[in-house]
Amino acid sequence: MFKRLLIANRGEIALRVARACRELDIDPVMVYSEADRDALHVQLAAHAYCIGPAPAQQSYLNGDAILTVAKAAGCDAIHPGYGFLSENAAFAQECADEGIAYVGPAAHVIATMGNKAAAREMMKRAGVPVVPGSDGSVANAHEGALVAKEIGYPVLIKAAAGGGGRGMRRVYDPDRFEELFEEARAESRACFNDDEMYLEKLIVNPHHIEFQILADSQGTIVHLGDRDCSIQRRGQKMIEETPSHVLSDELRERMGAAAVAAARAAGYQNAGTVEFVLDHTGEFYFIEMNTRIQVEHPITEMVSDVDLVREQIRVAAGLPLGFTQEDVHIKGHAIECRVNAEDPMCNFAPSPARIDFLHVPGGMGVRVDTGIYQGYTVPAQYDSLIAKLDVWAPTRLEALRRCRRALEELIVEGPATNIDLLHQVMYHPQFIHGTYTTSFMDEHLQEILDWNGEQKKVNA
Amino acid sequence: MFKRLLIANRGEIALRVARACRELDIDPVMVYSEADRDALHVQLAAHAYCIGPAPAQQSYLNGDAILTVAKAAGCDAIHPGYGFLSENAAFAQECADEGIAYVGPAAHVIATMGNKAAAREMMKRAGVPVVPGSDGSVANAHEGALVAKEIGYPVLIKAAAGGGGRGMRRVYDPDRFEELFEEARAESRACFNDDEMYLEKLIVNPHHIEFQILADSQGTIVHLGDRDCSIQRRGQKMIEETPSHVLSDELRERMGAAAVAAARAAGYQNAGTVEFVLDHTGEFYFIEMNTRIQVEHPITEMVSDVDLVREQIRVAAGLPLGFTQEDVHIKGHAIECRVNAEDPMCNFAPSPARIDFLHVPGGMGVRVDTGIYQGYTVPAQYDSLIAKLDVWAPTRLEALRRCRRALEELIVEGPATNIDLLHQVMYHPQFIHGTYTTSFMDEHLQEILDWNGEQKKVNA
Repeated sequence: MFKRLLIANRGEIALRVARACRELDIDPVMVYSEADRDALHVQLAAHAYCIGPAPAQQSYLNGDAILTVAKAAGCDAIHPGYGFLSENAAFAQECADEGIAYVGPAAHVIATMGNKAAAREMMKRAGVPVVPGSDGSVANAHEGALVAKEIGYPVLIKAAAGGGGRGMRRVYDPDRFEELFEEARAESRACFNDDEMYLEKLIVNPHHIEFQILADSQGTIVHLGDRDCSIQRRGQKMIEETPSHVLSDELRERMGAAAVAAARAAGYQNAGTVEFVLDHTGEFYFIEMNTRIQVEHPITEMVSDVDLVREQIRVAAGLPLGFTQEDVHIKGHAIECRVNAEDPMCNFAPSPARIDFLHVPGGMGVRVDTGIYQGYTVPAQYDSLIAKLDVWAPTRLEALRRCRRALEELIVEGPATNIDLLHQVMYHPQFIHGTYTTSFMDEHLQEILDWNGEQKKVNA
Repeated sequence: MFKRLLIANRGEIALRVARACRELDIDPVMVYSEADRDALHVQLAAHAYCIGPAPAQQSYLNGDAILTVAKAAGCDAIHPGYGFLSENAAFAQECADEGIAYVGPAAHVIATMGNKAAAREMMKRAGVPVVPGSDGSVANAHEGALVAKEIGYPVLIKAAAGGGGRGMRRVYDPDRFEELFEEARAESRACFNDDEMYLEKLIVNPHHIEFQILADSQGTIVHLGDRDCSIQRRGQKMIEETPSHVLSDELRERMGAAAVAAARAAGYQNAGTVEFVLDHTGEFYFIEMNTRIQVEHPITEMVSDVDLVREQIRVAAGLPLGFTQEDVHIKGHAIECRVNAEDPMCNFAPSPARIDFLHVPGGMGVRVDTGIYQGYTVPAQYDSLIAKLDVWAPTRLEALRRCRRALEELIVEGPATNIDLLHQVMYHPQFIHGTYTTSFMDEHLQEILDWNGEQKKVNA
């Protein structure tokens, strides 16, 4: 097992990884930017190294600085968390070249899966259903428009290097294709420094269903059930739950098998997520594989009792999983709410500010992962996620009620937050029924914000 | 189901009960003393009523004031929590007389079990092994000394109304019997307003093993496994774990069956705990039954996934448990640490003070139940428990390591606390081996405090 592991991240996920390290008797080493001197992942660390100024390019995305620290501090492994360098094949390769274990799949697997067009092709060959679309990438808007006509509108323009909804446009009107293609490509260049684009048929109002994969170096690949991540706003997940309410046992089994087949085709090792869209007819299609731990992993941990980050580290050290698909038992129901420092009443503007008061919910079936504390100032430079609230209960209804009461207990004073919005979603009939699709937020956001406003008036 | 439930308690257990209420769509009503205006159970409440001055006799023990609030607020149930009125048969009877459901067993059951001598007799008749001792209570020190001679020294003098180690004395030397008997009786008079005393043979260095019982009004009685509560200081539990490391499966099954038999003999309904001592030969003896929810109930919830307070309320409403002994599956291992505002380096003097900084641990398998928040001043009038830290993991070793890291993350600045002491116990060889007895703290406290002092010197 590793002796010292560098955590190339910040915020709640840095703490999450450190916890797994300490529970494995591995010494965690933190890195931080100049904006993060007061961050909890630094404050709680025994070893923490400043790696550069606030902009991520100069710190959390600075692979050279991170590798320098790893070597200086005697680290034998690096965990990238999510975001930042977590799906950067070049960085994974540099770690390998330095003889430092990268906690994630091999660099070439990251590279293949990171190229969404190449991943599509691999999945097609492996017999995993993919959304009809371009075979590989399209060279330019003109070629794209021809392909779009062939597969039929509406279509989705996607960046091969994309993620988190960036570099992506929906096109309903053929006349707007070229304009939106150029927009998406410009965004991909800006965000990912890459302009390879591809097309997919747009599945209207799908469910976003993903499967958690764990794979070891001995060839064991298991899935740990699904997550329904359809509550999204502009491609950013907001609430996730497991198991999804819209899957029959038979469909869940077929999708799980497809997810394992996808991982096997990719030669996958470590934790990963196979994302599907599920349409209203019950057809599902591979959209991408995330080659890292995901924000929403705790709900899977709650229903499976498997510590995913622990398993990531064990697998990266060459240890076998020690269990097979038959040993995986999903019990009960879990829901995650992503708590952001943002103002839903002001178009979700980020609200970096000092935390004047914090009360974290507790009690049975409640888990909180957060990087904030009372007196801490949320920096403006990074994303607005300040806490993940995860609840578990034996049934979906009980989990829903537990989630409501935990949100009621969660108090964050200082920044504007989306806590009220999350709470209101828990009372929306479509969420209660569990039949929502990815268009839920587009369709219901204004309605929910209006309730919110009315309730505030009543309370005032 | 109930509409409104009054919570006749304070601190973390008041919040615990409120959580169960909200998850059952029951409206919780809080009461508080003048010293508790800023307490979290009041601050988070939608309905809270002041019931009197700080001394518990005038507020939390003032049954009349509490019943007046219950009626005025339209409550159809009262949950007593633990401590205060939770084992007061007269109060339970008054609730019944007022037509308000008391969340606990019937008054006559509380009364019988509250008289430890009477409970012993009942258990003897039911075939549950009891420690050899006086048949019923002893009239005075002289009669006590005769009985002690008969059963053989060392003996334990106990108050029939006792609990929490008060009104109890160990006697090794016959010459000191009368003096210690009078001491214990005076303590019992002072603490419990009762001077009925009885004797038991002192089991030297036993394990304190208790079983969690749930019983409904339809006659279903189940146990939810054991808890090893042998880490105690002066009769006050400090660390609890489940399952106990010292029970074989066969012994666990026999003790569980005895616990169920004890509850059945008592005509028990609701949640309760049957406490045993287990000697070094593997013989076990009933010592008492606690007719309330216990501080350490969360570890049982973690390994059984049964929400005990929810079940308490459902059973009190006349609902059936909905599961039998065969449905109870204990999985993994859980440990609880009781965090107190007290100074282990100053003979555990209470340390009521302002909480200048608070960081609550989070992440997988960690549960915190607390009534404090940053900026809150712990009042001097009540007991020093400020938080319960509970961890779960698949194995005992993993739970132990998780407990260490969670204690490392727990930061309480302001009052002195026992956090360092709890942390050090997690590194003691005897705790690691899991073979400790109730004499652990007596034998090892000084040694552990010395490590603690040395470590502080190193860190300084």
